[in-house]
Amino acid sequence: MSNEINAKLVELAQAVLAQLEEERPPAIHIPQRGLSNVFFDDGERILRLGDKTSKRSFLNIAHTKKFMQTMLVAEYAKRLVADDKHAGIRELYYALKHSIAKSKENTFEDQNESNIIIEDLERTLDVLREQLNLTADRRGFIYGDIEIRDSGDRFNASKLGRGGWAVPGNIEDITFKKANVDYILAVETAAMSDRLIEEKFPVQNNCLLVACQGQAPRGIRRLLSRLHVEMNLPVVVFTDGDPYGWYIYSTIKQGSINLAYLSNTLSVPEAQFVGMTMDDIETYELGGVTEKLKDLDKKRIEEELKYPWFQNRKWQKQLNKCKKMGVRIEQQALANKSLEFVAKEYLPEKIESKNFLP
Amino acid sequence: MSNEINAKLVELAQAVLAQLEEERPPAIHIPQRGLSNVFFDDGERILRLGDKTSKRSFLNIAHTKKFMQTMLVAEYAKRLVADDKHAGIRELYYALKHSIAKSKENTFEDQNESNIIIEDLERTLDVLREQLNLTADRRGFIYGDIEIRDSGDRFNASKLGRGGWAVPGNIEDITFKKANVDYILAVETAAMSDRLIEEKFPVQNNCLLVACQGQAPRGIRRLLSRLHVEMNLPVVVFTDGDPYGWYIYSTIKQGSINLAYLSNTLSVPEAQFVGMTMDDIETYELGGVTEKLKDLDKKRIEEELKYPWFQNRKWQKQLNKCKKMGVRIEQQALANKSLEFVAKEYLPEKIESKNFLP
Repeated sequence: MSNEINAKLVELAQAVLAQLEEERPPAIHIPQRGLSNVFFDDGERILRLGDKTSKRSFLNIAHTKKFMQTMLVAEYAKRLVADDKHAGIRELYYALKHSIAKSKENTFEDQNESNIIIEDLERTLDVLREQLNLTADRRGFIYGDIEIRDSGDRFNASKLGRGGWAVPGNIEDITFKKANVDYILAVETAAMSDRLIEEKFPVQNNCLLVACQGQAPRGIRRLLSRLHVEMNLPVVVFTDGDPYGWYIYSTIKQGSINLAYLSNTLSVPEAQFVGMTMDDIETYELGGVTEKLKDLDKKRIEEELKYPWFQNRKWQKQLNKCKKMGVRIEQQALANKSLEFVAKEYLPEKIESKNFLP
Repeated sequence: MSNEINAKLVELAQAVLAQLEEERPPAIHIPQRGLSNVFFDDGERILRLGDKTSKRSFLNIAHTKKFMQTMLVAEYAKRLVADDKHAGIRELYYALKHSIAKSKENTFEDQNESNIIIEDLERTLDVLREQLNLTADRRGFIYGDIEIRDSGDRFNASKLGRGGWAVPGNIEDITFKKANVDYILAVETAAMSDRLIEEKFPVQNNCLLVACQGQAPRGIRRLLSRLHVEMNLPVVVFTDGDPYGWYIYSTIKQGSINLAYLSNTLSVPEAQFVGMTMDDIETYELGGVTEKLKDLDKKRIEEELKYPWFQNRKWQKQLNKCKKMGVRIEQQALANKSLEFVAKEYLPEKIESKNFLP
């Protein structure tokens, strides 16, 4: 793998070098970011990047700084891959930040600048930043009966007490062996995961439990995608019943619009949503433990109503119902029935009867 | 342990019952919260709770609701302890939230109300909420050569690849065996922890690595305190060089003013601070990779200048220097020297020469 990545980086550099040697002004072509260059592939049910590119030219003074930044980041990634080392994207920023000789210009003013260049490189080379050995901050853990191998260690994630395995930011080098489970339950909060672990839900329902701890970080999204593809495990997502929770589901399922080019390796288009839904409030008589929507929630509903993968009767109904009711419902609100309710009734019933949103 | 906790809860209830049977208006005495009932124990070097109490009386209408809430929370904790179950503090809120018969009053309006009652109970009974089987949301992980036992499992936290063990919110029931290390390094960010794990810092320097992932959550603070006391391991803290990072150190070392009554079981008064400091900026020529302080940072400096445990020459110097320079320095900025610098030079040199702040 790293040979292939190395080759892509070298190819980029050699193209620039060739232009210089021919005394032509160097330029590179970068696939455009943003909505105008993204489309929803109805067949594969994922976001894809279009074929519009921008020319980034060294002698165009509007591009000069970004061209320089692109070369710096590519060169740093090249060294990381060669040395088999990994750096956080914040470390990359600090490593490359310096003032340029005989000027007051800095290579980068803040980390946003280097983050954008990293995304440019991902699109240009069609690789994940993780494959360039660049790592985002990690969060989240996995619990359940799967054997994982990493750095010469071999362990089962169901034999770690109630803790589970803390998932690294970069999981490119780990391998999975034997998963004695039927599916994966991805859970929004750590507290709910703790609850399910205490009730032995993963054992009794033969599933892996993956805690996102908020919006699913890239390490977790990559883990879900790899487990889905390599171990052939369905992914079921369990979040709060609110626009933020549904956005977490959307990101796991389809990727984000900003990073559409990563959809094939970071998302699980076949993921299904078990809850919470607005219907749950009625079905389980939870009207007394809802919370009022905030303005930001309402704004997000309007955005989600337009998402291509929410263009179906079931999701439109839930989103409109949420707008109309003006309330949200949290996973923990199920404790209003009883502490065990979520593990003994809510989830088993909904999962058994495949009462999912698409 | 749970017998002792159970006895405390029963004692609280019986005191109320006795008053009712004597036809006296029931009341309980709760140690006061806030700065006026907190003092710094210079001998033990920890925050302690004073002996001022408030009377919470059922027939005082200013207290009636809180009295009712206190009974509800205590009763719920009693059930948790009896059933050997754990609930998140958010679950407790939802479990107890209901409207009161023949009224429009809710038992609790929002989670802040139940959180405060939990703190009241902790002070009144002199127990941790974790001992009442109430758990805060978890974050953080541990990596290194220690054997941990939890729920019948037994594993070594150095044999989990690059991931480490995800620390549960409640660690009261875990036990530690054999720690083949000399000290514990508590690190602010997960990204820096990943960096140190990749450089094999814990192996080469014979230490455990504990990632806080921001402000140290209660599970991590309890873990550090227990490891310090039970395994006799010194704790060294490594954060960003800014008021927020120093606040993380302060919380690990002394506890927070709000939760002063927990100092003896949640803090490590002997903890030491390895960096980052303002001096590091000069020593390691990092002037080019500092960031400007924000207003909130400046406000926090003023607060920290007054903390009892920062009343020493070294800390006053750093805090005043930060104010004067108007900049902060992040852990990741050390990558400006080289990716390996933090693991191969910065930390080993400072730790070897005991170049700590107290």
